[in-house]
Amino acid sequence: MPTIDLNADIGESFGRWQLGDDAAIFESVTSANIACGFHAGDASTIAATCRAAVAAGVTIGAHVAYRDLAGFGRRFVDCSPRELADDVLYQLGALEAFARAAGARIAYVKPHGALYHAMVDHDGHASAVVEAMRVFGQDLPILALPGAAVLAHADKHGIRGVAEAFADRAYNADGTLVSRREAGAMIEDDATIIANMIHLARHGEIIARDGTRVSVTAESICVHGDSAGAVATARSLRAALAEAAVEITAFA
Amino acid sequence: MPTIDLNADIGESFGRWQLGDDAAIFESVTSANIACGFHAGDASTIAATCRAAVAAGVTIGAHVAYRDLAGFGRRFVDCSPRELADDVLYQLGALEAFARAAGARIAYVKPHGALYHAMVDHDGHASAVVEAMRVFGQDLPILALPGAAVLAHADKHGIRGVAEAFADRAYNADGTLVSRREAGAMIEDDATIIANMIHLARHGEIIARDGTRVSVTAESICVHGDSAGAVATARSLRAALAEAAVEITAFA
Amino acid sequence: MPTIDLNADIGESFGRWQLGDDAAIFESVTSANIACGFHAGDASTIAATCRAAVAAGVTIGAHVAYRDLAGFGRRFVDCSPRELADDVLYQLGALEAFARAAGARIAYVKPHGALYHAMVDHDGHASAVVEAMRVFGQDLPILALPGAAVLAHADKHGIRGVAEAFADRAYNADGTLVSRREAGAMIEDDATIIANMIHLARHGEIIARDGTRVSVTAESICVHGDSAGAVATARSLRAALAEAAVEITAFA
Amino acid sequence: MPTIDLNADIGESFGRWQLGDDAAIFESVTSANIACGFHAGDASTIAATCRAAVAAGVTIGAHVAYRDLAGFGRRFVDCSPRELADDVLYQLGALEAFARAAGARIAYVKPHGALYHAMVDHDGHASAVVEAMRVFGQDLPILALPGAAVLAHADKHGIRGVAEAFADRAYNADGTLVSRREAGAMIEDDATIIANMIHLARHGEIIARDGTRVSVTAESICVHGDSAGAVATARSLRAALAEAAVEITAFA
Repeated sequence: MPTIDLNADIGESFGRWQLGDDAAIFESVTSANIACGFHAGDASTIAATCRAAVAAGVTIGAHVAYRDLAGFGRRFVDCSPRELADDVLYQLGALEAFARAAGARIAYVKPHGALYHAMVDHDGHASAVVEAMRVFGQDLPILALPGAAVLAHADKHGIRGVAEAFADRAYNADGTLVSRREAGAMIEDDATIIANMIHLARHGEIIARDGTRVSVTAESICVHGDSAGAVATARSLRAALAEAAVEITAFA
Repeated sequence: MPTIDLNADIGESFGRWQLGDDAAIFESVTSANIACGFHAGDASTIAATCRAAVAAGVTIGAHVAYRDLAGFGRRFVDCSPRELADDVLYQLGALEAFARAAGARIAYVKPHGALYHAMVDHDGHASAVVEAMRVFGQDLPILALPGAAVLAHADKHGIRGVAEAFADRAYNADGTLVSRREAGAMIEDDATIIANMIHLARHGEIIARDGTRVSVTAESICVHGDSAGAVATARSLRAALAEAAVEITAFA
Repeated sequence: MPTIDLNADIGESFGRWQLGDDAAIFESVTSANIACGFHAGDASTIAATCRAAVAAGVTIGAHVAYRDLAGFGRRFVDCSPRELADDVLYQLGALEAFARAAGARIAYVKPHGALYHAMVDHDGHASAVVEAMRVFGQDLPILALPGAAVLAHADKHGIRGVAEAFADRAYNADGTLVSRREAGAMIEDDATIIANMIHLARHGEIIARDGTRVSVTAESICVHGDSAGAVATARSLRAALAEAAVEITAFA
Repeated sequence: MPTIDLNADIGESFGRWQLGDDAAIFESVTSANIACGFHAGDASTIAATCRAAVAAGVTIGAHVAYRDLAGFGRRFVDCSPRELADDVLYQLGALEAFARAAGARIAYVKPHGALYHAMVDHDGHASAVVEAMRVFGQDLPILALPGAAVLAHADKHGIRGVAEAFADRAYNADGTLVSRREAGAMIEDDATIIANMIHLARHGEIIARDGTRVSVTAESICVHGDSAGAVATARSLRAALAEAAVEITAFA
């Protein structure tokens, strides 16, 4: 029986500002990428989110980011690898305290936003994140784009790298994501999303937008929860995967 | 043989800004109140400070604070007890990751600045700090002013409260500190500081500025390290205590 | 013909986080209290909000606040009057640049959140805000609660103090607001809100919740825009005031 | 009689943290690049710095930066040109309020740190800074590296671009700065600094480290004030220029 994990970004409110329908998205995912305070997530939001994750039986992941609340972690910040490794360790420690308070532990790491993209080809930042995880010392896996540089760095240090696919993103024939600057980067149609993801779970292949089948070893699917439509898509996807006899279970 | 702990605020640099002569003060104290990022202490400063503390054989304490970099944690912030408890837990978790990375653990908690003063009589904030420590769950003691409300809250939850004295502050006959707004609040003379602290360590009494002897159970003495004079005073005090056959040892 | 101003808090988004339906509320008010970056309002939000205010023919007010993004300016911060005066001047200068870029000028000042409440009885902070306005030097009026200490400070320095009423808040017989901690602090019923505010505009009296008529000289009514209900209430109120032959016009 | 301006970074303290000896450096320069709060400079520091500049007869420049206190503005932040233009306008407005309060005006703009370097070849960020200056509308000049892309952008919008030289940096034969990663990037010897700068002021030529004379049109020399040595160098340089009959006067 094929298995897959479903992950989503969660806990991205900050103080007075609410973002996303976390209660709804918790019903559809198995892994929650929880903001750690550097791009979103004040301490009380983190506390409530960890409790909600545990109540929902969802695995807690650390959604570590550049220090940039004003930019929501979406802007590359050219910090030194030393600064980045320390900033990531700081976030891991902070989140771990709340995970433990809720009766759980951090189970994996997923870099957020611009840091996620830096993991693909910025060796200094990729090795800094791995360094922070190594020092944190809890033998956690890291979630990344297939082929990202960080996976090689992780492997070198005995850290498990896990690749993920994006439910609502179109892929090129070489397995890379269609740039958001191009038309058709986002798949708007739930039926296509569902068909693609069932195919991925069963056959280990992404169907690119030109029909090419690309072999990938994704163990998780990233869904979104920051719009009503995204929540509905996640719910439909989960139901369809279950109906297609795909076991939905946390990867970490 | 009487024993006493010497503690100082350490790791209060932030990014480009350096503060205090930590290397020097580490030679004189047994406990380091390390800034956790909310009033001072960027992640790389915390990392370096924890390593230096371990190298110096100095115990690591969490110098938790209100979220206020611009005010250096010296301004009361009327946050809710819920927000404060979560902010303190966040800081404890973050610092713990660096303490562990350096081969140690947080050994105690000391609120900083305006939060330190709130511990004296602000029940909501005092119980919030204790709540955070209880949830953090590592059975840590808290350092506070003798008679502070937080000590009663701590006691109620099985947390050890430890009182401290200030080496360079004058005391009133009732055992309270002379307000900094009054002349003579600070003791400038090293000989008086040393005589008072040896008396405290040996006899459990503070000598007030009018000569009254006030019984206190302070297990630690707070010294400062943010000026050349303060560092020299701390060094002299340590030497004098040792010469007076007072054992200088961490309380936690 | 009686006249009244309608003001609302606007521009309270920050980076990725959206708050309030500014486009809708601009249709109902004559004065916009625009966040200046210290409790909300990143620079691009301020820029867009000033342009929208000018396009809507709405007067620009500076919604100055304590430096506290995490607390949305709703927590008292015990800064020194000097720090506060400088922080307020900083916000005034920043907002003015965007007001001018949009072809307008700041027309008044309204302290936000905890700073608004401090204006009532915190002499140090009240005089600090007035000091900042005096130094800013553009002869602006300040919007405050009737009877607030800041009005006397303003008067002393030749600054015009303007009192306002709250459309959806219940009043005590002495003209003070019913505390939010009490039941019935908020008036939920649009008909009551409208009747009260028409009475205020026509007769200069607030009708307290026990029916007492309290004489006030409010020149502006504060409405809210951070919920769909509040926007609808504001729209109904404006229409009802117009129908009741009350001229709705900016006070500044 | 040849003329030259001397500029330095000033007002880079923040809250509790002090940086540089501003009082000393004010004696040697004609133009002060004043931090605007985004990389350094809380509001009270800005206020005091503007008053000190006016008292010293030194021209006020806006030292605008990326929003990055933790990185002191030294890390490239990949914000959008829109965000950057708005962030720069925010800083200009804020500083202008303090300049006016001190009886002066902002006289020029100099981007700081990583933003200064982005001006050389990042067209999006270079045009964003120029856009902010254009919108600010006070016809200010911008200080930049000779040949920087921002100078062309400025020229296109009728903004005066002014090139500067660095007193303590070695130059390559093509007029570019020797990278700080190379040995010999900094000129440690005051006699060489003074000889080079007198030559620059008199002949419009930089003497590269291999002896090549490179024609430049620098109207200002950047000196530093964040170390005792730098302050002494600035003082010696000013005295030597005066003795060499070079008029030292603000360029803006």
